[in-house]
Amino acid sequence: MHSKHHPTEDFRLNAEFDIISRYFKKPTASAILGIGDDAALVALSNNAELAFSTDTLVSGIHFFADTDPYQLGYKSLAVNLSDLAAMGSKPLWAMLSLTLPKSLAVENNKWLSDFSKGFFELAHRYKVELIGGDTTSGPLNIGVQIIGEVAQGEALRRSGAMLEDEIWISGYLGDAALALCHEKQQIKLEPDEIAHCLPALHMPTARVELGQRLIGLAHSAIDISDGLIADLGHILTASNKSADINLTAVPRSIVLQRYIHQGFAIDCLLAGGDDYELCFTAPKTKHKAIEQLSNELSLPLTCIGEIVQGKGLIARDAQGSEIKLEKKGYDHFSS
Amino acid sequence: MHSKHHPTEDFRLNAEFDIISRYFKKPTASAILGIGDDAALVALSNNAELAFSTDTLVSGIHFFADTDPYQLGYKSLAVNLSDLAAMGSKPLWAMLSLTLPKSLAVENNKWLSDFSKGFFELAHRYKVELIGGDTTSGPLNIGVQIIGEVAQGEALRRSGAMLEDEIWISGYLGDAALALCHEKQQIKLEPDEIAHCLPALHMPTARVELGQRLIGLAHSAIDISDGLIADLGHILTASNKSADINLTAVPRSIVLQRYIHQGFAIDCLLAGGDDYELCFTAPKTKHKAIEQLSNELSLPLTCIGEIVQGKGLIARDAQGSEIKLEKKGYDHFSS
Repeated sequence: MHSKHHPTEDFRLNAEFDIISRYFKKPTASAILGIGDDAALVALSNNAELAFSTDTLVSGIHFFADTDPYQLGYKSLAVNLSDLAAMGSKPLWAMLSLTLPKSLAVENNKWLSDFSKGFFELAHRYKVELIGGDTTSGPLNIGVQIIGEVAQGEALRRSGAMLEDEIWISGYLGDAALALCHEKQQIKLEPDEIAHCLPALHMPTARVELGQRLIGLAHSAIDISDGLIADLGHILTASNKSADINLTAVPRSIVLQRYIHQGFAIDCLLAGGDDYELCFTAPKTKHKAIEQLSNELSLPLTCIGEIVQGKGLIARDAQGSEIKLEKKGYDHFSS
Repeated sequence: MHSKHHPTEDFRLNAEFDIISRYFKKPTASAILGIGDDAALVALSNNAELAFSTDTLVSGIHFFADTDPYQLGYKSLAVNLSDLAAMGSKPLWAMLSLTLPKSLAVENNKWLSDFSKGFFELAHRYKVELIGGDTTSGPLNIGVQIIGEVAQGEALRRSGAMLEDEIWISGYLGDAALALCHEKQQIKLEPDEIAHCLPALHMPTARVELGQRLIGLAHSAIDISDGLIADLGHILTASNKSADINLTAVPRSIVLQRYIHQGFAIDCLLAGGDDYELCFTAPKTKHKAIEQLSNELSLPLTCIGEIVQGKGLIARDAQGSEIKLEKKGYDHFSS
């Protein structure tokens, strides 16, 4: 439903959104929510809605051709679970559209066996059933569709942010992008740093429980796949609001913190993407409940600022001075 | 959900089915019907079921890179509508996973504009809403997912064929394959023949109305995407039955009939694929009702044989003598 980080290329902001909205966004008569959020919503009759999302991983774009297939199977489902998490939806079913080069489609193939193990490890954890599959030959392309359920009218939309909402981030940002910088040999991490960051890149944790628990607490949510600045920007655009955030509050791991005085680390933190953490907004009255939820889930939830009147984003340093942001995210189709 | 014909390559039978069943078919606890039919089924609470299917078209495999994008947009939805038609399901929503080379993702691109026109022409005809989309860059790959509704327990499955059922085919078979032979310069059709056959290849008609009208009449159904012999074979395998068919009864256009004494035309008719007609089985007591439906829809429905005890397929010539079939269909991943 949205763009994703691209390990192997750099991309210009928002080209994907232009394509989808220009050519494919049409009013939907029966769907409650069509193209433009993390998932689409359609009504069921039993006071529930179904949420639908699709995300594709392409070899040479989203992953290197020699990526461990177990991790790839895992990640291809994780990025889709993340979309549903951002809607507050419980995942139920998945479909898999696998385009495979002939070299990977031979009998008793370890690649396929490992891929399916990674996929199903995560599927079983969340009781997601793979109900449909299509395999075809061609350049490696992994499309996953996910379908979930959410109580009627309760889904967390990008457009729900309200004035004076606090802006929260789950977990830590930037580790996946840091690992990628290392894999691309742009930086050289220490072995303990690699061990810390690589799982964030190859086996991200979708915040499935958090998303569902945010219903009744949060006004809006998005998953951070393109980087904080870009994805928070989507909330602001959809909600027609501005945000005032403290960059020093943006949660980062001790590994990323070690490099924070170098430009690449700030890029990783704010615009790296592939984080699959949730960015959500909630009224101040829910501050304590959110802190309690953080304890309960053993998951850091950090308040980084608040929703204000206006357009765009105000970013401040530790002294409260405004900082001009340059690199706002990545996108497809430009290099 | 199933394999499709491949204009640009030849393929061995059943490799796709091996991959799906070997690596990705798992028991589903909540889904009524998982991997292995034209669509998956999940229960809704209001006496209805949702049907899900996904089909992908890959450049260089399912279509030539220079294929008219309008036709490609049309066909990418048509082949998915055909899956739902084979379940007797009314189509409701679609998602689109589009992987585009950068050359096609520029602003004001005629390719994208034409593609979306073709897609939406068909979507509007059947009131299908595009509710989700994902675009990413990479080698051209068009994944469409379709979601429809069918009354509880009424979906037409591959596994429902019963002894003494008559076997029916909608429309005419082989024209798409014949057009492909011409496009590949394996044969040379006359201009009037090309005009007749090309639409079958590039803008196939999914039998959406027929599928829904077959509920209550047919015991089983499949759409013919890999060729009659292969797809009827899927019904026989799933239903654990055999079929006794009269090859001379297999419906073909007057154009294909002109070439029927040449081997390639018989291959087109029985194993060409890309037909997107329905093959269904129904009890003899419904024979007249099916003929009446044929009149009502102005769509030829032809009885070609019947379901019998046993395994495999018995094919007969005009004299009733058994014919040994060699070429049983196409599949992916072999050449």
